[in-house]
Amino acid sequence: MFNQLGVIGVGLMGGSFALALKRAGLVKRVVGYSKSPATTEKARKLGVIDAAADSALQAVAGSDLVLVAVPVAAIEATFKAIRQLIEPGVLVMDVGSTKRDVVDAARRVLKDRLTGFVPAHPIAGKEVSGVEHADAQLYLGKQVILTPLAQTDPNQVQQATDVWSAIGCQVLRMTPENHDTAYAAVSHLPHLLAFAYFNAMLAQPAGREFLSLAGPGFRDFTRIAASDVSVWRDILLANREEVIKQTQRLRHALDAFEVAMRSGNAEALSDLIRTASDGRSGWQMNARPTPPR
Amino acid sequence: MFNQLGVIGVGLMGGSFALALKRAGLVKRVVGYSKSPATTEKARKLGVIDAAADSALQAVAGSDLVLVAVPVAAIEATFKAIRQLIEPGVLVMDVGSTKRDVVDAARRVLKDRLTGFVPAHPIAGKEVSGVEHADAQLYLGKQVILTPLAQTDPNQVQQATDVWSAIGCQVLRMTPENHDTAYAAVSHLPHLLAFAYFNAMLAQPAGREFLSLAGPGFRDFTRIAASDVSVWRDILLANREEVIKQTQRLRHALDAFEVAMRSGNAEALSDLIRTASDGRSGWQMNARPTPPR
Repeated sequence: MFNQLGVIGVGLMGGSFALALKRAGLVKRVVGYSKSPATTEKARKLGVIDAAADSALQAVAGSDLVLVAVPVAAIEATFKAIRQLIEPGVLVMDVGSTKRDVVDAARRVLKDRLTGFVPAHPIAGKEVSGVEHADAQLYLGKQVILTPLAQTDPNQVQQATDVWSAIGCQVLRMTPENHDTAYAAVSHLPHLLAFAYFNAMLAQPAGREFLSLAGPGFRDFTRIAASDVSVWRDILLANREEVIKQTQRLRHALDAFEVAMRSGNAEALSDLIRTASDGRSGWQMNARPTPPR
Repeated sequence: MFNQLGVIGVGLMGGSFALALKRAGLVKRVVGYSKSPATTEKARKLGVIDAAADSALQAVAGSDLVLVAVPVAAIEATFKAIRQLIEPGVLVMDVGSTKRDVVDAARRVLKDRLTGFVPAHPIAGKEVSGVEHADAQLYLGKQVILTPLAQTDPNQVQQATDVWSAIGCQVLRMTPENHDTAYAAVSHLPHLLAFAYFNAMLAQPAGREFLSLAGPGFRDFTRIAASDVSVWRDILLANREEVIKQTQRLRHALDAFEVAMRSGNAEALSDLIRTASDGRSGWQMNARPTPPR
């Protein structure tokens, strides 16, 4: 049980975390801060937070749990704004989709206060953003990846594990490097492809006419193309090396299909499709709890 | 009201059409044929068809409505097998996802019996195949594209329009050429990308570990990668020229993202993502009834 949760960045992710902790009875009071005063006020009116803070630092004052839920490019500035009030025993987490850059920023800024910081990435989201979409059940049944450092206090890692478990998450641990490599493959590349595909559609003369003809396959394939602009700008920049390695792999896989198509090699094309079709048919979300360490 | 529907290829698409017509009271009797006797027998036991035919030709005998629901590469052979029994006044349709190749096959084989053939492509499907997944509601609320030829009997086009409308479809007409161009963009390329992406994932050393970490975005993006192998082999081969044009467009769109990422150009990257995100947020399935003619 925490006395006070301070949420910096009261959007979809931060707001949903606050609601989930309240519903689970894990926190007495939630103080929130967003860069836009209108957002902070909306969060208060919606009952997502109990009190609005005027600054990130004020949201940390008196909090024994702090969630930094800002776009990853804003995390370093946020750490600078709050570090003076991060007392020993305060658990600080982020929810960023990349971890090496967040850990680097934490090392640079937090220094001796690094021990209380547990980097976290909940594998949850929606294609809509904003506190008005915050949902106490967003994290239920989802995975959350923790990437603690050698300096991280093991008690804080345990506390972090307990709080995410209590709101329904399966908690996994990885190194920041393995995290970024894996999520470049399973999340960042699909988003990039969905964005690029949608742009390729819009860029052709009859593109908008074509869109009126699209069906359920298109709908699901492109759902993530509607994702938040600044969040994904930051992710694709922060993890660009790994993402570009993945685009090279995708281009090679696409080459194989094009060679089979151009040469009319039905058997080779069948084999390529079968690999994907069998692989996807056998896949289940959250099927295996053991990630690479 | 039809006296007898003959379904050649009693799988997901053909079986669902039979069930939908029965439910709507549009047909007195359904005769079905599949290459595999076990499939035909399963369809009869499930009540999808009333009688099992021993050949494609036998499924046509006595039918005033014939649905050819075989993979597109098998359509020409099917036309050859049935043409002698296609009498004037019999409405023949297919459900192929490509239309130029089907129309070419019809022209070559049906000749003076071409007037009763109305090429059709219902924009409906599932990532599972087989008559056991046939569903009377599969076509409800979906679009169906008809690509009649200059020689097609207008009365048959009207009958085709009426029957698809009666089972809940929005009926559109296009030329076979415009159809294939549009569906290369909105359907064939997404399938190809989903296949290639899944293969790229499986081909890397830690690929199977990565898969255990994937979340809801991955799930929806890759749903169509589980599609039927022979159906998609035939589509990608039949429409390869248009599909490869689309892969070139996709590669160019991907290039633009990679340039922005490599150069760290946050503003350009934002603009690229915003185009996709705004475009997808404003898109709705079946929002506009007017296709390119």
